[in-house]
Amino acid sequence: MIIKPGELLASINSPADLRKLKPEQLLQVSQELRQYIIDVVSIHGGHFGASLGVVELTTALHYVFNTPLDQLVWDVGHQAYGHKILTGRRDIFHTNRKHGGISGFPKRKESEFDTFGVGHSSTSISAALGMAVASKYKGEDQRQHIAVIGDGAMTGGMAFEALNHGGVANANLLVVLNDNCMSIDPNVGALKEYLTDITTSRTYNKMRDEAWKILGKISKFGPDARAIVSKIESGVKAAILKQSNLFEGLNFRYFGPIDGHDINHLVSVMEDLKHIPGPKILHVLTTKGKGFALAEKDQTKWHAPGLFDKITGEIYKKHYDTPQAPKYQDVFGHTMVELAEQNPKVMGVTPAMPSGCSLNIMMKAMPDRAFDVGIAEQHAVTFSAGLATQGLVPFCNIYSTFMQRGYDQVVHDVCLQNLNVVFCLDRAGFAGADGPTHHGAYDIAYMRCIPNMVVAAPMNEQELRNMMYTASQDDMGPFTIRYPRGEGVMPKWRTPLELQQVGKGRTVQEGEEVAILTFGHIGNYAVDVCQKLAHDGITPGHYDMRYAKPLDAELLHHIFSKYDKVVTVEDGCLQGGFGSAVLEFMVDNGYTSQVKRLGIPDAIFEHGSQLELQHEAGFAPIDIENTVRKLVGVAVKI
Amino acid sequence: MIIKPGELLASINSPADLRKLKPEQLLQVSQELRQYIIDVVSIHGGHFGASLGVVELTTALHYVFNTPLDQLVWDVGHQAYGHKILTGRRDIFHTNRKHGGISGFPKRKESEFDTFGVGHSSTSISAALGMAVASKYKGEDQRQHIAVIGDGAMTGGMAFEALNHGGVANANLLVVLNDNCMSIDPNVGALKEYLTDITTSRTYNKMRDEAWKILGKISKFGPDARAIVSKIESGVKAAILKQSNLFEGLNFRYFGPIDGHDINHLVSVMEDLKHIPGPKILHVLTTKGKGFALAEKDQTKWHAPGLFDKITGEIYKKHYDTPQAPKYQDVFGHTMVELAEQNPKVMGVTPAMPSGCSLNIMMKAMPDRAFDVGIAEQHAVTFSAGLATQGLVPFCNIYSTFMQRGYDQVVHDVCLQNLNVVFCLDRAGFAGADGPTHHGAYDIAYMRCIPNMVVAAPMNEQELRNMMYTASQDDMGPFTIRYPRGEGVMPKWRTPLELQQVGKGRTVQEGEEVAILTFGHIGNYAVDVCQKLAHDGITPGHYDMRYAKPLDAELLHHIFSKYDKVVTVEDGCLQGGFGSAVLEFMVDNGYTSQVKRLGIPDAIFEHGSQLELQHEAGFAPIDIENTVRKLVGVAVKI
Repeated sequence: MIIKPGELLASINSPADLRKLKPEQLLQVSQELRQYIIDVVSIHGGHFGASLGVVELTTALHYVFNTPLDQLVWDVGHQAYGHKILTGRRDIFHTNRKHGGISGFPKRKESEFDTFGVGHSSTSISAALGMAVASKYKGEDQRQHIAVIGDGAMTGGMAFEALNHGGVANANLLVVLNDNCMSIDPNVGALKEYLTDITTSRTYNKMRDEAWKILGKISKFGPDARAIVSKIESGVKAAILKQSNLFEGLNFRYFGPIDGHDINHLVSVMEDLKHIPGPKILHVLTTKGKGFALAEKDQTKWHAPGLFDKITGEIYKKHYDTPQAPKYQDVFGHTMVELAEQNPKVMGVTPAMPSGCSLNIMMKAMPDRAFDVGIAEQHAVTFSAGLATQGLVPFCNIYSTFMQRGYDQVVHDVCLQNLNVVFCLDRAGFAGADGPTHHGAYDIAYMRCIPNMVVAAPMNEQELRNMMYTASQDDMGPFTIRYPRGEGVMPKWRTPLELQQVGKGRTVQEGEEVAILTFGHIGNYAVDVCQKLAHDGITPGHYDMRYAKPLDAELLHHIFSKYDKVVTVEDGCLQGGFGSAVLEFMVDNGYTSQVKRLGIPDAIFEHGSQLELQHEAGFAPIDIENTVRKLVGVAVKI
Repeated sequence: MIIKPGELLASINSPADLRKLKPEQLLQVSQELRQYIIDVVSIHGGHFGASLGVVELTTALHYVFNTPLDQLVWDVGHQAYGHKILTGRRDIFHTNRKHGGISGFPKRKESEFDTFGVGHSSTSISAALGMAVASKYKGEDQRQHIAVIGDGAMTGGMAFEALNHGGVANANLLVVLNDNCMSIDPNVGALKEYLTDITTSRTYNKMRDEAWKILGKISKFGPDARAIVSKIESGVKAAILKQSNLFEGLNFRYFGPIDGHDINHLVSVMEDLKHIPGPKILHVLTTKGKGFALAEKDQTKWHAPGLFDKITGEIYKKHYDTPQAPKYQDVFGHTMVELAEQNPKVMGVTPAMPSGCSLNIMMKAMPDRAFDVGIAEQHAVTFSAGLATQGLVPFCNIYSTFMQRGYDQVVHDVCLQNLNVVFCLDRAGFAGADGPTHHGAYDIAYMRCIPNMVVAAPMNEQELRNMMYTASQDDMGPFTIRYPRGEGVMPKWRTPLELQQVGKGRTVQEGEEVAILTFGHIGNYAVDVCQKLAHDGITPGHYDMRYAKPLDAELLHHIFSKYDKVVTVEDGCLQGGFGSAVLEFMVDNGYTSQVKRLGIPDAIFEHGSQLELQHEAGFAPIDIENTVRKLVGVAVKI
């Protein structure tokens, strides 16, 4: 189905076209842009609420600023659909997030208007500042540099680091604070409350203006008053102007808050800001999901709703004939409550992903024991370490890719002190449609090199539950459990909790000639492969290793003694990952089996379905099967 | 030499003893504590200025608060010498930072008064908040939780993340902001200027009081004035009280600034604060090096001066008979200037370590091209990425251990986009006396798993220079160069710059039976070992591999074809490190040599000299020698 853009939007093939329009036409452009996003996303899927919220802002930015010479950096970037549509990608926008299609995030390779690749939060100010400082150094004084950052992303520490530098770097930087009170879930923290204060205190600006007026009037009440006024005027002025605002405190000139859906006002304010040099911040109030009533009402649900009926708002669900296995996410969420009910030490921590990782189940059930700490992975880890020093057992759930941002804290605050913090790494392995910024490819390698850390991965729901139960025991030390996005394999998943022996693998089947060693959910592929191979009389052994660290030495001695050929399979990077750990064991112990490691090779993988990407990387079921076939000298399948 | 503490200090074996004293005795305690630090550090070495600056603060904290029930977290911790002396470690303080002695940083294993291990910056608020939330959950309402953090550490993003959470967590948390305007180097950034503003604006508090008074007076000037006053009073009050301070903006009650060397005032303010629940911040002004004139005057030099004459202030230097090889740090610093003079694209970035990494040489020579961005590793990396998008080649120098804090940015902002950012990882390998928080043990493993990243290590000064020169060429992509703390091996180090072929190793000597593959400076040990072994007729080959990624496939094919026995040596972790990369190559290519990997095993190593630690880890020269001896079947040396 071809989706037709509105009349004006159809004429805009680049921002240069947009800039030919008259200001009074921008309202229509915005409306058409919003409708186009609704039309396409309802059929093709993707992030929804965020882009609807910045339709007017996007239009105004490209209208006022001379992009791409002026450089625009979108923070996180799932709100940049309007930007993509206005910058030459309207007609391929329906390929968004599909294998081979355009990315769901800005991407340098895709367009010169995408000045900086994004996906993770809070990077935009640093990146735009780098660009601004480069322009200054090169004498390109006319170029503007704009970072558009949400109030959620602003809680990420690196945004603050960038403000601290930007306030003194004397470069031409505009930060647009897109304040919609939301991350994916409602935004939390003191900064959010502060922004709400500014916005609701009967307009801060009005108050400031009145304060100035009154100072003028007072001075008319005789010399006594004048003297006092003169004495304190500079002090009060400094206080109100300079220190009265958190951002002005950091030496950014602060403007706003203004209505982010008033396109004409946005344009006129931005026109003014163009001529003000130095660091400045424009505080813009927007509504996530703006213009689609249901999305405005339930913003978390409509962050990325899947496909839906754009008229009725019905979100299409998959229909299954058979009982369906739950998502690992939900198993995590429900099991947290179960563990916490049994064990008063168990606590939950998430950096701004309560609905994504399902900690919201526990937050609702026991709000004093589960915390959303904001987009703040570093703090999430060390806050958990602090809890652990008091004898509690925090489960800190962070997506594998975002865990990278708390890496130092894992090493320095948790592992060096051997504290009982359980890291549940959600979205481990290929993330799918979110693409390279979100793939959880490196965690096995970067976690297993840290002393004291246990690295586990469940092959199914029961193993996840048992690993969580095991990790919640006293004195377990740092414990990582990684699992992928999506469904497991056990419709009846609520199994009794059983302790595992840390570092012990499981024999799925003994076999001959070839052993397949799997780590995590990907082991289910090997089960299918073994069944298929059995038809051809090929019977590899299959071992669900469960722990990449510590490795099951006993089982590995058995395997290397028995099999000359070994295949390792992991949904993670081949450099230094699970397979490498197996190689280290093999060589350290003097074995010389032939080993073929399957996993994510040393390259960037784009977006696509998990299975598409796994096949590209060479560890989809067919690839595992063919690897075994080659090793035993049987013709491969295509 | 036994160093005698003063009379009062001699009687204090724990804070309980301190709390028995009368307030008027605290001045003397402080003086004795300061003198004791000077006496011991001048002879035994260690950090100096920071601890002198917080003598009164330390005394007051332990006097007022009921430590260790009340929990005190020192940020970074090199300022905690006074704390150690007052908490039972006075008589072993002379073992500070020595192999087997006490740690130079607070450490949980060492004392119940050390509530949280530190070393890296900006962790204290997160940790203390975790403790405070745990106390709240457990109903221990009387416990106090105090984080002492410097104004430098406050620029680290995670401190801001913690404030954002702390402002709404409703837990009993006191943040003491120790404002001395310094990191190791002078502190930089907008926050510092803001704090200076508060402090110097003819006392912010006085201004605030006067503003209140004037509001009262104005209202006497008739009904008109009264009406206006009444209208704006609440607004102005809210603005001044609530929004006028960055910390109050984040919902922390703000107190100060107060003189951090006035022990009695400190005590009385803290007594008051004990009874104020919720999040609060006490802004304390101190002078780094307080009480030792030279240290107050040149605070960077006296951060950790080495041994010195406490009377004359003469800092003892090592004396050498022969021309001495320079530190790698200085080679880096001078080579930066050389490269930048030739190549206008070259820029320098450091997160608060200009003197430590020697970027200060370039910052002085070309201030528009070299930046200290504050304690802000995350921002440093993404700011560099921003520069790189504009065609510049930033050299971002970060200690190996601190690079962990910018890991996500390396993956997400640099490597995914394949940008030309050069990471110079200083202090790679064992850091020495700073201990486990500062060892740069994991970088080879965590860097080589990222696509597009080059991982190099120079064996000497010339290689460092040539690697830097090579990395500065166009389109090199992400490039890591790691090198250790301390001297290289080439007194005549200013060699002509030559391009290297990326991924090519160097044959130091061909040999027989055993090949030694080294990565980086540690290769010099192998040179010595080979010379010694030659006397016994043992002639291993030695290869300076230079690149852990990409590996030199040609050279490795040669090595594995020629030698049955291979030793790899690296000053880095064995899990997933350089040796593992060699194993991956070997097994992927079907070789079956016997390989012995030497490096840092999977354990926490404490502080000591680099050589002591390397021997403990099993890769000091004697260990390499014995490894070869064992492999060739010759008696080992002890």
